[in-house]
Amino acid sequence: MHIRVVNPNTTESMTALIEATARAVTGPGVTLDAVTPAMGPASIESHYDEALAVPGLLAAVAQGERDGVDGYVVACFGDPGLDAARELASGPVIGIAEAAMHAATLVGRGFSVVTTLDRTRGRALDLAARYAPAGACRGVYACDIPVLSLEGDPTVRKRVVDLARVALERDGSDVIVLGCAGMADLCAAATAELGVPVIDGVAAATLLVQSLITLSIKTSKRGEYATPPAKPYTGMLLPFRL
Amino acid sequence: MHIRVVNPNTTESMTALIEATARAVTGPGVTLDAVTPAMGPASIESHYDEALAVPGLLAAVAQGERDGVDGYVVACFGDPGLDAARELASGPVIGIAEAAMHAATLVGRGFSVVTTLDRTRGRALDLAARYAPAGACRGVYACDIPVLSLEGDPTVRKRVVDLARVALERDGSDVIVLGCAGMADLCAAATAELGVPVIDGVAAATLLVQSLITLSIKTSKRGEYATPPAKPYTGMLLPFRL
Amino acid sequence: MHIRVVNPNTTESMTALIEATARAVTGPGVTLDAVTPAMGPASIESHYDEALAVPGLLAAVAQGERDGVDGYVVACFGDPGLDAARELASGPVIGIAEAAMHAATLVGRGFSVVTTLDRTRGRALDLAARYAPAGACRGVYACDIPVLSLEGDPTVRKRVVDLARVALERDGSDVIVLGCAGMADLCAAATAELGVPVIDGVAAATLLVQSLITLSIKTSKRGEYATPPAKPYTGMLLPFRL
Amino acid sequence: MHIRVVNPNTTESMTALIEATARAVTGPGVTLDAVTPAMGPASIESHYDEALAVPGLLAAVAQGERDGVDGYVVACFGDPGLDAARELASGPVIGIAEAAMHAATLVGRGFSVVTTLDRTRGRALDLAARYAPAGACRGVYACDIPVLSLEGDPTVRKRVVDLARVALERDGSDVIVLGCAGMADLCAAATAELGVPVIDGVAAATLLVQSLITLSIKTSKRGEYATPPAKPYTGMLLPFRL
Amino acid sequence: MHIRVVNPNTTESMTALIEATARAVTGPGVTLDAVTPAMGPASIESHYDEALAVPGLLAAVAQGERDGVDGYVVACFGDPGLDAARELASGPVIGIAEAAMHAATLVGRGFSVVTTLDRTRGRALDLAARYAPAGACRGVYACDIPVLSLEGDPTVRKRVVDLARVALERDGSDVIVLGCAGMADLCAAATAELGVPVIDGVAAATLLVQSLITLSIKTSKRGEYATPPAKPYTGMLLPFRL
Amino acid sequence: MHIRVVNPNTTESMTALIEATARAVTGPGVTLDAVTPAMGPASIESHYDEALAVPGLLAAVAQGERDGVDGYVVACFGDPGLDAARELASGPVIGIAEAAMHAATLVGRGFSVVTTLDRTRGRALDLAARYAPAGACRGVYACDIPVLSLEGDPTVRKRVVDLARVALERDGSDVIVLGCAGMADLCAAATAELGVPVIDGVAAATLLVQSLITLSIKTSKRGEYATPPAKPYTGMLLPFRL
Repeated sequence: MHIRVVNPNTTESMTALIEATARAVTGPGVTLDAVTPAMGPASIESHYDEALAVPGLLAAVAQGERDGVDGYVVACFGDPGLDAARELASGPVIGIAEAAMHAATLVGRGFSVVTTLDRTRGRALDLAARYAPAGACRGVYACDIPVLSLEGDPTVRKRVVDLARVALERDGSDVIVLGCAGMADLCAAATAELGVPVIDGVAAATLLVQSLITLSIKTSKRGEYATPPAKPYTGMLLPFRL
Repeated sequence: MHIRVVNPNTTESMTALIEATARAVTGPGVTLDAVTPAMGPASIESHYDEALAVPGLLAAVAQGERDGVDGYVVACFGDPGLDAARELASGPVIGIAEAAMHAATLVGRGFSVVTTLDRTRGRALDLAARYAPAGACRGVYACDIPVLSLEGDPTVRKRVVDLARVALERDGSDVIVLGCAGMADLCAAATAELGVPVIDGVAAATLLVQSLITLSIKTSKRGEYATPPAKPYTGMLLPFRL
Repeated sequence: MHIRVVNPNTTESMTALIEATARAVTGPGVTLDAVTPAMGPASIESHYDEALAVPGLLAAVAQGERDGVDGYVVACFGDPGLDAARELASGPVIGIAEAAMHAATLVGRGFSVVTTLDRTRGRALDLAARYAPAGACRGVYACDIPVLSLEGDPTVRKRVVDLARVALERDGSDVIVLGCAGMADLCAAATAELGVPVIDGVAAATLLVQSLITLSIKTSKRGEYATPPAKPYTGMLLPFRL
Repeated sequence: MHIRVVNPNTTESMTALIEATARAVTGPGVTLDAVTPAMGPASIESHYDEALAVPGLLAAVAQGERDGVDGYVVACFGDPGLDAARELASGPVIGIAEAAMHAATLVGRGFSVVTTLDRTRGRALDLAARYAPAGACRGVYACDIPVLSLEGDPTVRKRVVDLARVALERDGSDVIVLGCAGMADLCAAATAELGVPVIDGVAAATLLVQSLITLSIKTSKRGEYATPPAKPYTGMLLPFRL
Repeated sequence: MHIRVVNPNTTESMTALIEATARAVTGPGVTLDAVTPAMGPASIESHYDEALAVPGLLAAVAQGERDGVDGYVVACFGDPGLDAARELASGPVIGIAEAAMHAATLVGRGFSVVTTLDRTRGRALDLAARYAPAGACRGVYACDIPVLSLEGDPTVRKRVVDLARVALERDGSDVIVLGCAGMADLCAAATAELGVPVIDGVAAATLLVQSLITLSIKTSKRGEYATPPAKPYTGMLLPFRL
Repeated sequence: MHIRVVNPNTTESMTALIEATARAVTGPGVTLDAVTPAMGPASIESHYDEALAVPGLLAAVAQGERDGVDGYVVACFGDPGLDAARELASGPVIGIAEAAMHAATLVGRGFSVVTTLDRTRGRALDLAARYAPAGACRGVYACDIPVLSLEGDPTVRKRVVDLARVALERDGSDVIVLGCAGMADLCAAATAELGVPVIDGVAAATLLVQSLITLSIKTSKRGEYATPPAKPYTGMLLPFRL
């Protein structure tokens, strides 16, 4: 079984963190690799960044199909390009926000998200509306730390944990979802400190993909996720012509 | 890792089917057993049956805690007693309707459920409202075969597959969810015949539980799923006193 | 006309309070009795308690059918076993949370619930989602008094009223729903002190049942609430075989 | 106890039917009268009619307050002027659509409405969204008989019952709500023929009002239903100045 | 092109303000007039006022049809009589709450409303539920200034702006909607002070009507907004007979 | 006033149609131009196409900002890249699905969409959930004509009109929304044939943008639509670095 984790941003050190996180949970017999796109933004902190992360992500998935990959993780909490990637892939494709929110609803009654910048809160709420039943996501909190500053800053864990405490209290929630792939390494410590499940989407998505592959459950090709119809592409994006 | 699958009805042959289904997908290093409750209905086809299946289920989970079980599957599509079981268990507890609906939304845009008796359709819709985002469950269809008649009837597969075809067409759905643990053995054949993902909740729930245990994600004990407060119990239910 | 009020917990003094509350509002020609189940928990403060209160409740309703009872009140604010009881009963069966929430929406624009323990807030919200239109229930507040401590504690009324005041202000609500059968005797005083309608579900449910019986409106037996199909029951629950 | 039923249209024979229906269900000690407004449309079959039925209704409620009336029924299925009437009244005010939909959800899982003209279907759906939880109202069907043609036409019952049968089948519903005060006299026969509860809002609303008065539950005067602020009124509507 | 703005209350000075506001934004070739009804309340601050504003509004629209008016603005934030007016008019009819909420969702992610009296907040929320997608309206705030006191009071702007600041912060909204036609003249100053779009519904509705007329988009006469069926009217409302 | 219409696909003849449609409705003093992106797919018929249309669209909007454009129309019914475009633009940005759905709800009670390929129906439903209140969009129908085959095919109008007739009947809707910019030239004829408002989003969006500019209402820069934070971009997408 071959799982590929795509980091939609172009920061290699973040890909490395994501790969280590994913590899730590996969079972025996799983080949897991993580890739950085050949084009796009260094981090994703706006709709603009997100839109421009998608071409690189799609190129990575198209390459994955040529490589015989069985399933994919999209490792950015905004789950960019998920629908388009599903059209390309024959196996399952899971986003980390999707995975984390699914996992959160399996072990609690209501979750709060702790994310990076305030301007990404709306996206997290949109995703919750898409993935989770009404009322399951009780709040989204921003710690105001840019994505690329998460790594190597020793104060991050305390700020995230403190904010999570506020969230649990205000929202009456019982699970915390970490709202950025760059927070994956905080998961165990935060769980211990907070005494509630703290969910990292990278690990969760990896095991969801592994589970679906084991179950031989692939992306449905009836209707909306069928392979896109071929057509002319022009300009810089000519290479994306199917 | 020790996973216990609880069949909430008291029919041993169904427990055997469920156990075989679950065991076929678990990874190496997983101890999996399936248990039949010591009391309750032979099958669950009404709210009455469901309510009276719960004591036996809870006794099985309480025993599981004494046995050091790490996580549970509740293997009836009505997901009876799930909230109460979560109060008892320290690890995760997943229902098969819950698991199947989660899996369905990961690989398609809308699913239809094919279940047994017409009178259980309302319960399936209630569960979809609880587990899935609005609009994800597009219909619930009853094949009008009692639970205990599923086993050994060679016409069942054709009737279920035919009904699923109707559902896909009417609902514009792209995934089928099997609405009874007793249909688990139809899953592979139905997938092949229908050309869309067909989800069996027993296998899906087993791998979700295995995944959560691997991720060290337990049932939250903050708030609603905390251990129940101790108090007097009387009459026939005295043994349930905590 | 014969109305039976079932107290789903096994505390006799609470049954007495409930019976007095219900009897105070019934019209002439109504025979009203209240019963305590022969088995189950002394109070209901968890999903576990609630699940294990249901067998005793169902036995009481089955006995009621043999006694020719015309309609039932389920007198615990979690409305345990309501669907199953409706399958057994030919007449109407009303839960006290159901009745209180219905009454609240008839005389105001938004209600707040004041209940006992924090861990039961989720159940109250689930019930509001089931019974009331979206947005009608604006908040659920816990006074942190265990059910069996309500009786005889002279400070209870003040704590409930003070909490209701907070709720009215924070939620902008205009009606208060009392979230426990054990609060029934606070209703008149709280209404006077707060100057808004304060609804006790025991009295409200009793008059709803009386009204439905007068109107010859019975539980629908088309579909989901039809009599459960007969089947083998085993173990301790053998007596529940229909 | 004094209950007043207001027929919002100006057709006296319909007021008589409504009064008889209501009087048949009230308990001993209840004074019930029904009134026809002094102004407005002969029947209500459009938003225009409904808007112009409201002044007459409000005049009737204002008169009721001077007469010491304890509670009101608004006996048109569009529930015209309900919010404004609640501002005027100190006791409860219940609409017949409101009452019928409440009653329907107490004895079944989903109801269908059979109403008069197709153009009023939207109003019925709006009211269902206001009164009933999501999904409870499964369909609204128009029999295409004008309101004033209901009376005295021997074919009406058959057409309503036939349409109700279609509704039960298509919607999978288990309760029928009659969508016009002018259908009140069909209720018993339709129940017998259809074998499911058929709800007439006039009788249901009357008993709901009687129940609320017995419970001393009045319209909340905190906030939105407080007495309207006094101010100048001009022209033909000068008499409505408070 | 002839647009008529109807002020549903009978205060002439407010009609003048509304007319000036609307006229300031219309394009060349547009004839715009504003009218005051011949009957009804001096301001609309309750459901009672709103109900009694509708006859005058409908008379004004009926006159407009005789005058060949192409489209209407209903210039009170409660959008009284909108459905009935649409039945009468062949062209478009837009309410100012409707217009403001539509405009708000086109330039931001979530809006807050600042309105006059606390008791009108419920109506604003009902309108948001009718016009805007779920979650778009994040809060409604009352500045506690009666409608007729808005004009000429130099402190109003500061109170409205201060309240809007609170709303933006608490709700995390990014657009402010002014909740009264009498606030139209605050719009430009408030936008400048707050640094977010502040929407006045009078101007917005006028341009929406102008746009729909330019596009030849009229009120649909298929079904609910078709011309009302003719019938007898009696009493003071006899002149409203169609 | 300068309005720019961006055709997100790269087919020049479609840009010409769109430009003519938009220009036909703009008022005096409006400079309107339409642009074709320098890169991307020839038509948008999948999530893949849509994702890869966005870079070209964003480049066009960035150029528009340098050109002093006051507002934008995104002229593809999937409204690709709308959120990202709003981050770049200071003025309003309106999608044609957004505009059409807004217009539809202003003149009717429920609309049906007639679109091109079946696989795009899900996207239309997602957009309806985002733009319109619950229940306003009653159905989406696909005429199974590829986008680029719409132009010049004399049978298209009949097929679209026939499908719209089916939609009106099945859905009980009273307005039709055309689900592709390439259908803009059918609008007048379809309105005449169907006798209900038929909305073309290109014209509607153009007038909405013109109206917002006239009202000085710009995209809110508080929060989510603020200018994106600058950061490194790599590979082929380096030119998109802000």
